[in-house]
Amino acid sequence: MSPPHRSPAGATSSTTTSGTTGTAAWHPAWLPDEALRPLGARGVRLLASGDDPVVTTVRAEVDHAAQTAGTTTTPARATLALASDALAVPGLRAAAEHALALAERPGLAGLLGAQGFVVADDEGALVVVAAQPRGLLAGWHHLVRTGGDASGATAGDLVAHVPSQAVRMLDHWDNLAADSPMGPVERGYAGASLWFADGRVRDDLTRVEHYARLLAHTGINAVCLNNVNVHARESALLTSGIEQVARLAAIFRAAGISTYLAVDFAAPITSGALRTSDPLDDDVRAWWERTFADVYATIPDFGGVVVKADSEGRPGPFAYGRSHADGANLLARALAPYGGTVFWRAFVYDHRQDWRDRGTDRARAAYDHFTPLDGRFDDNVVLQVKLGPIDFQVREPLSPLLTAMPRTRLAMELQVTQEYTGQQQHACYLAPLWREALDFRPWGPVELWDTAATDPDAQTVAEVVRGTDALPGGLVAVANVGDDPFWTGHPLAQANLYAYGRLTWDPTLDPSALLDEWVALTFPQADPAVARTVHALLDESWHVYESYTAPLGIGFMVRPGHHYGPDVDGYEYTPWGTYHFADRDGIGVDRTRATGTGFTDQFPAPWRDVYESLETCPDELLLFFHHVPYSHVLHSGATVVQHVYDTHVAGAQAAERMRDTWRDVRGLVPDDLYARVAERLDEQVRSAAEWRDQITTYFWRKSGIPDPENRVIP
Amino acid sequence: MSPPHRSPAGATSSTTTSGTTGTAAWHPAWLPDEALRPLGARGVRLLASGDDPVVTTVRAEVDHAAQTAGTTTTPARATLALASDALAVPGLRAAAEHALALAERPGLAGLLGAQGFVVADDEGALVVVAAQPRGLLAGWHHLVRTGGDASGATAGDLVAHVPSQAVRMLDHWDNLAADSPMGPVERGYAGASLWFADGRVRDDLTRVEHYARLLAHTGINAVCLNNVNVHARESALLTSGIEQVARLAAIFRAAGISTYLAVDFAAPITSGALRTSDPLDDDVRAWWERTFADVYATIPDFGGVVVKADSEGRPGPFAYGRSHADGANLLARALAPYGGTVFWRAFVYDHRQDWRDRGTDRARAAYDHFTPLDGRFDDNVVLQVKLGPIDFQVREPLSPLLTAMPRTRLAMELQVTQEYTGQQQHACYLAPLWREALDFRPWGPVELWDTAATDPDAQTVAEVVRGTDALPGGLVAVANVGDDPFWTGHPLAQANLYAYGRLTWDPTLDPSALLDEWVALTFPQADPAVARTVHALLDESWHVYESYTAPLGIGFMVRPGHHYGPDVDGYEYTPWGTYHFADRDGIGVDRTRATGTGFTDQFPAPWRDVYESLETCPDELLLFFHHVPYSHVLHSGATVVQHVYDTHVAGAQAAERMRDTWRDVRGLVPDDLYARVAERLDEQVRSAAEWRDQITTYFWRKSGIPDPENRVIP
Repeated sequence: MSPPHRSPAGATSSTTTSGTTGTAAWHPAWLPDEALRPLGARGVRLLASGDDPVVTTVRAEVDHAAQTAGTTTTPARATLALASDALAVPGLRAAAEHALALAERPGLAGLLGAQGFVVADDEGALVVVAAQPRGLLAGWHHLVRTGGDASGATAGDLVAHVPSQAVRMLDHWDNLAADSPMGPVERGYAGASLWFADGRVRDDLTRVEHYARLLAHTGINAVCLNNVNVHARESALLTSGIEQVARLAAIFRAAGISTYLAVDFAAPITSGALRTSDPLDDDVRAWWERTFADVYATIPDFGGVVVKADSEGRPGPFAYGRSHADGANLLARALAPYGGTVFWRAFVYDHRQDWRDRGTDRARAAYDHFTPLDGRFDDNVVLQVKLGPIDFQVREPLSPLLTAMPRTRLAMELQVTQEYTGQQQHACYLAPLWREALDFRPWGPVELWDTAATDPDAQTVAEVVRGTDALPGGLVAVANVGDDPFWTGHPLAQANLYAYGRLTWDPTLDPSALLDEWVALTFPQADPAVARTVHALLDESWHVYESYTAPLGIGFMVRPGHHYGPDVDGYEYTPWGTYHFADRDGIGVDRTRATGTGFTDQFPAPWRDVYESLETCPDELLLFFHHVPYSHVLHSGATVVQHVYDTHVAGAQAAERMRDTWRDVRGLVPDDLYARVAERLDEQVRSAAEWRDQITTYFWRKSGIPDPENRVIP
Repeated sequence: MSPPHRSPAGATSSTTTSGTTGTAAWHPAWLPDEALRPLGARGVRLLASGDDPVVTTVRAEVDHAAQTAGTTTTPARATLALASDALAVPGLRAAAEHALALAERPGLAGLLGAQGFVVADDEGALVVVAAQPRGLLAGWHHLVRTGGDASGATAGDLVAHVPSQAVRMLDHWDNLAADSPMGPVERGYAGASLWFADGRVRDDLTRVEHYARLLAHTGINAVCLNNVNVHARESALLTSGIEQVARLAAIFRAAGISTYLAVDFAAPITSGALRTSDPLDDDVRAWWERTFADVYATIPDFGGVVVKADSEGRPGPFAYGRSHADGANLLARALAPYGGTVFWRAFVYDHRQDWRDRGTDRARAAYDHFTPLDGRFDDNVVLQVKLGPIDFQVREPLSPLLTAMPRTRLAMELQVTQEYTGQQQHACYLAPLWREALDFRPWGPVELWDTAATDPDAQTVAEVVRGTDALPGGLVAVANVGDDPFWTGHPLAQANLYAYGRLTWDPTLDPSALLDEWVALTFPQADPAVARTVHALLDESWHVYESYTAPLGIGFMVRPGHHYGPDVDGYEYTPWGTYHFADRDGIGVDRTRATGTGFTDQFPAPWRDVYESLETCPDELLLFFHHVPYSHVLHSGATVVQHVYDTHVAGAQAAERMRDTWRDVRGLVPDDLYARVAERLDEQVRSAAEWRDQITTYFWRKSGIPDPENRVIP
């Protein structure tokens, strides 16, 4: 491990140090040395021996914390003998000369799994016990996060910390070079790839080591390295490039993170010399078997693959008349001997739709394609389903596919990178959006809309995707990082990455509390005004973004291609299946079963009825499910068009307040970070005004209904 | 000179031969060997000696024609002694052993200028006499075009052929490499640059030699080699790259064509080491003087420069508070000692306009910027003014700036490349559009709209831009060529290039007759059905394109960025100043002086009044000048919205007829050419239907006025 972090050149806060790799420099994010000092000062003794890479990482962390605090580490490290009673933790005390102790105890595996740990207060000495190295590392980061004295354990108590979700993955849409289609990182807004440059893996991976450490801290246990749109150059990573991938895998391995690659379903053709990639072809099967044999010879703990097939032009099994189960199982069976997993994306729809055809509904596509295949996927296939039925809009209903695959491992895919939520120019804290989805109960109860069809014991989405011990699932998200000094372009977008990782571990964490954690780690010893300001800026920022952009669940009023800024009709006459059908009388997509596309039918009760009815459909999703006149009165009491005017004016004003709020922390955070956020907030204010004016003008011109307060520009 | 032409591999017509350069192959366009055969068979004797490059070219042409025809050339070439009477052409006969003769007679210069020639019928022997080598070459191509027996001369007559326009220029928006911003050729739809590749001038310039020959045939006498948006790499062409440019200049010189470069106004900063490009700065002046001294040391007959300054983000004199006269004269004075010319583009407007601001009018910009400077430009500056006030739309009024600069040399800039007219996917013959502009009489008469304010002696635009002997002007156009085998992507787009060149020589040529010429040369000995089909396809193709795209002069309903295909609101809320202001009640831009932006004021009488009045404004420009309700009744009798429905349905039908028409020539033209055109026509039919449906649906949704024939998709 390299020194755990470096901060960007020009950082002026005394809480950060600086360093560079090549010409780049970076901010320490939520692991500045300052954040380790309290723990280091208290002293930690590691009771784990051996050269397991993760144990070695923990050892380096313990040493580094001690050095940071100016204390000396104890040279001797005892090996803990396993107690006969796996939970007889107080017995550890004799071995723990310091106030805190970490211990590796394989006997706890049944309770804690590979990655959990137990915290106990043994007469004032906090003791952390894990069954395996990854749990040990998670326990260490727990101590870092809590400063060693906020663990939640009280004297005599044992508190077990076990991750909620087995799958806690981050996908990187990184391409091998800046001249790749869509640039170095597809939908990336934070510079180039952290690990690819000029067509290969970078020579200097120092920064990747710190990145892996940041992820490990949050709970992430898997990364996919490359763009799901796998082009020819990137396809070779799996074959001729696997030695390069191994360098990255070694870094992530030491942080307790498994490495995956996105692969091209046509790889037997593009990388092999075959004429087909038919999943039922023997040569194809043999090609994948040979390929994975070679992969595992180089990377024995390779995680597996992510596949975007038959999606937006990518090849897939449809070309051969095969099902997606055939496609996924082909790869799964070649991976099974090594314990590898296939993440198969359910993002399959017709991207060459005819806009004239109002009967075809992109929202239906994933459900229609995949529900017939439930139970037909092998056990080492995880079906990766986007949160909503369209594509990461600021507001969508839950993808009903998540409710309809009981015999399939599922992962819900989120987007940490802000493709449709401001592209890290706008501050938009997404944890509340994710929590709303994770907490959603597809089978009821319907809290806001009082219907009889409720089931108080119904599962939440978090419980659905968690799956079972036999068929565990979890969460996947698209990362928002790059070689930008602040990792995420907008420094406050670090909070999204932090919160995503933490929610994978515990989906019940409160978004506001996660902000507190992030602030405490990122700005240690900062004035309390910093936390207040971050909350004032971020707590409601998702709703603010929604308010000045796409109203009432309509979505996709963005500039085609890059997806930044407003263009109400930008996608209206395109093949992408993303329409609003606004005319001079009204707007919205009729997805009811009574008169529309029947999409509401894909939901279980009660939501299939809640969404079907204009009486009960939530305002924020009204136009997703219904086509209504501009004069339709919402539950809020406003008409649709007045809601559009009001929310857009208010949203742009809120953006201005966010900009003003930030000024409260000038001098309290590093100057370069302050300036970067200030610059982004200026752009957010400009852009929010542009959104407000375009959207309100569009609907004024179309509806002819004036704003009573004359705030709309004709 | 290389062999005069090669044709693409796979051409099956017996009238073409084939060849390649590297991996490329090309079609001979309007100079296949077959076209030379009649002339070669009749025999031509060249009476001009010396090693002038153009004379050498003529000699090679004469020899090649004879070889093509299977006749032998006469080894001896007599030098013609100048007759005391410069027009005593019949006296030539004794020296002319063959039926046709070319003679260089410097004494004719006063009458013919450098590039004219005289044709005489001397008792059955056609005699062509020119004063200078370029005239000799023009005369040769006249003979090629007419086959030596359709010159228009009758026995004893002398017919002088003198170019109408002194400036007959073609601008190439070529970049040095495929990874340049906007690709290898900005707004190019025919492959990569003919002369640049991989950051430098190509090694093999064989094809450029044939290209120069094609241009010389039409009358072109100047080319600019590189994109007017001059990026850093291309800026170096003028300095460290000038030796490479010299290789191209030598090829064009031999074809009687002068070579220009587009330059960056900030070159003293970007290519020099200065901190300013202020036109009044002594160091800047010295830098340009030094630079041009070096240029002319390498290319003694370098034509000069083309400059896009203070336009769409390009640097210019405004940054220093200087005028465009200051900017242009800076370069002009550095070029003057060598006889070089500055082409200074008038395409200056605010491309960061606020769409909310209905008072600012991009159409006004060029006039407002430049008319105060009339008389302040040096004599070796030509102000290059786009045909219309906006940007090469399918229909615009004339740029009034062309009427308001009597003391300035002017060139009207046309766009042969079909940026806004179908991008060489659609067949769109532009000569009728250009003729309409060239024939336009800005001071009247108003033929179609009977007003009293007419002046039958008023100049045409062709006469305006021709200028005077002291201050001559002419025509400039953006080329439509690339390394595509057919030069222009769509083979029928060759006709645009051909017709443009011919119109620079004689703006009174009939577009339909030019098509006949082009067909006769390009498809020699072809079945008469070929000419019929080309006429059926192209004669009205401009009006067809207009009918299914932007109606009534509104313009810019294209996809932003690439400008292909419909997007009615694509530019409506952008900073580009291109709006239609459609709302539920009506559409159009009020540019009247009574209630609008006052743009009509920029025209002289009678047009300032014709355009101002709804009563007299021509239908095809109605929405350019007026905002009217959808129910407004046109001169044609239709309402605006019904016109939109009718023309779009009819236009798409016309495209289908064009596709069907082409089938008549299967087997009568080379198969590869047939297939290429057929493929493009398929795309034109598809695209025209898309235009029809988007435009009609848009206006149906907005106006709510149904089509009585129910042809519109809601």
